[in-house]
Amino acid sequence: MLLEKTISEIGDLDQAAMEKAQQRLDSLIKPPGSLGVLEEIAVRLAGITRNPYPQIGEKAVIIMAGDHGVVDEGVSIAPQEITVQMLPAFIAGVAGIGVLAKHAGARIVVVDVGVAVPVDIPGVLQRKVKAGTGNIAAGPAMSREEAVKALEVGIQVAQEEIDRGASLLATGDMGIGNTTPSSAILAALSGYTAEEVAGRGTLVNDQVMKIKINAIARALEINQPDREDGLDVLSKVGGLEIAGLAGVILGAAARRVPVLIDGFITTAAALVACKIQPKAREYIIASHLSGEQGHRLMLEQLQLSPVIHLKMRLGEGTGAVLTMHLIEAATKIVREMASFDEAGVSDLEEDKILS
Amino acid sequence: MLLEKTISEIGDLDQAAMEKAQQRLDSLIKPPGSLGVLEEIAVRLAGITRNPYPQIGEKAVIIMAGDHGVVDEGVSIAPQEITVQMLPAFIAGVAGIGVLAKHAGARIVVVDVGVAVPVDIPGVLQRKVKAGTGNIAAGPAMSREEAVKALEVGIQVAQEEIDRGASLLATGDMGIGNTTPSSAILAALSGYTAEEVAGRGTLVNDQVMKIKINAIARALEINQPDREDGLDVLSKVGGLEIAGLAGVILGAAARRVPVLIDGFITTAAALVACKIQPKAREYIIASHLSGEQGHRLMLEQLQLSPVIHLKMRLGEGTGAVLTMHLIEAATKIVREMASFDEAGVSDLEEDKILS
Repeated sequence: MLLEKTISEIGDLDQAAMEKAQQRLDSLIKPPGSLGVLEEIAVRLAGITRNPYPQIGEKAVIIMAGDHGVVDEGVSIAPQEITVQMLPAFIAGVAGIGVLAKHAGARIVVVDVGVAVPVDIPGVLQRKVKAGTGNIAAGPAMSREEAVKALEVGIQVAQEEIDRGASLLATGDMGIGNTTPSSAILAALSGYTAEEVAGRGTLVNDQVMKIKINAIARALEINQPDREDGLDVLSKVGGLEIAGLAGVILGAAARRVPVLIDGFITTAAALVACKIQPKAREYIIASHLSGEQGHRLMLEQLQLSPVIHLKMRLGEGTGAVLTMHLIEAATKIVREMASFDEAGVSDLEEDKILS
Repeated sequence: MLLEKTISEIGDLDQAAMEKAQQRLDSLIKPPGSLGVLEEIAVRLAGITRNPYPQIGEKAVIIMAGDHGVVDEGVSIAPQEITVQMLPAFIAGVAGIGVLAKHAGARIVVVDVGVAVPVDIPGVLQRKVKAGTGNIAAGPAMSREEAVKALEVGIQVAQEEIDRGASLLATGDMGIGNTTPSSAILAALSGYTAEEVAGRGTLVNDQVMKIKINAIARALEINQPDREDGLDVLSKVGGLEIAGLAGVILGAAARRVPVLIDGFITTAAALVACKIQPKAREYIIASHLSGEQGHRLMLEQLQLSPVIHLKMRLGEGTGAVLTMHLIEAATKIVREMASFDEAGVSDLEEDKILS
């Protein structure tokens, strides 16, 4: 089975490469540690890629699209048909992710893993597992077998992109209503209540907010997901695109490629991926802090810190691709800066430095 | 006088251009406001440039270098000669700012406005006003006339770069010991105590920290800077590169060009610039939140929010140039995304949206 194989292939970071990267960083013409998180990222990339001087080449953002039966409850401000209507805009480069991926120099890969209607759009990968999930407020989103299939779609697409040359992946989502299952995943895996995990999504009003909280509470009550079993949570209260995205994360980690998460939905996918294989966490880089309130709680669960703070809440991978520039910057620091010796700059006075 | 002329040329943002930009943003295929701060930046750039569809062309980072008499007190971990030793590394592109400016596609302009020793380095602009400041813990940093001269150096260099085609400026600093006068400026303008404004700088130990707090307290006590007079604060407890940077900000604002501040030193310069001409604030974009503790207090004074959070504390303009990519992204959103009408995407359900 591809999923089992992938899980078993995810290894530890390469400590020797990380130590070499850290030594180089400490020799450069700057106070020690003064490039902050850029230095931490450079070291982690060394551990991920087994290269003390990591380099980013081609980049890709993988957008998984799927629909959600729970929209029947009235949890979204957007009609469900928008899920499929947005896909041509992604391909044409005129949606948020299209514009920002082009700006980042990343190619866009759009995958139908669970859109409710038939999708025949040039450029969209057809990997549909199921035409939308069941309504989680009334029963499971999908079967355990369907969840595995959707995870494997993500693994396959990630590995196809890596085979084509991608050295940095970003994750993006499209699916009207998908903040509701993402909230349910957070609640199921962390023990937070429906009120604590529900956010305004795309700015729903108080009435819709109440419906949303109720739907999340009922999803947890009816499905009783097992918090120790990521696959159980995913299949009962998750989504097909969320499963695909968790697969992308596992697939990237197995191939030692760094993967950027975006906002609320892709971070829900990361929670699931890390519950299935905790070692996957080391391969994930948190990009931005979403305006969606539960995102902070998710990142706390993962113990990951976001690097940009722009109050974005669009999804699609927009925050993730914006961060690619910073990841590349981290690699250039370690590769291109000179050391004190090389530049002929005087040493700092060690006895005055905080140890 | 160039300074007076520049101050009088700084106008208000163009409200009509901002309204047009906001209307376009609200029509795009995304939930309203969901690109967060990117949308705010796009609107502000419209107001700054008087263009509803602003575009970033050439970019430059202006690094002002100067020395500080207060290093005689022992406030720094780095010997003073590092100020001049770093300049060739800036030009050669092997210092932090060199690597990151190249990555951002920005040209580097290095200016000697107050280095203690003679500087004859190809590529460094020679605009020295004075060979380092006086020791602020014992007397004024410079005369009021010298402060005006250094401000005017900054105005001139900014306007030269704008004349050469720069449409976005970033500010950077080089000056061993310059967190001490920057802390003193914050204290003088805001009323915070020496303890509250002093930080670890480049990670000084407890002993040096104590010396630094004492030096700041004495600078305030001996010089009695007038908190209502930016030029008085600048000349008494500031620095030559800080004055030059305040000039860059005023010069950019007068020409309606957005200017990015970096960390603790350039933000001290922004405090001075905004005390001299409060309207300058609208032209300033805060880039990152520095690891230096007082930086947060400075940004609060300016009511500006940083967009990246990388715990950097190197200075040189490194955080500012890293942010250029995000500023360009903001302009591309408003210029390149399609509207709901243009993309044939269904409208959102207005009655469900939070108003």
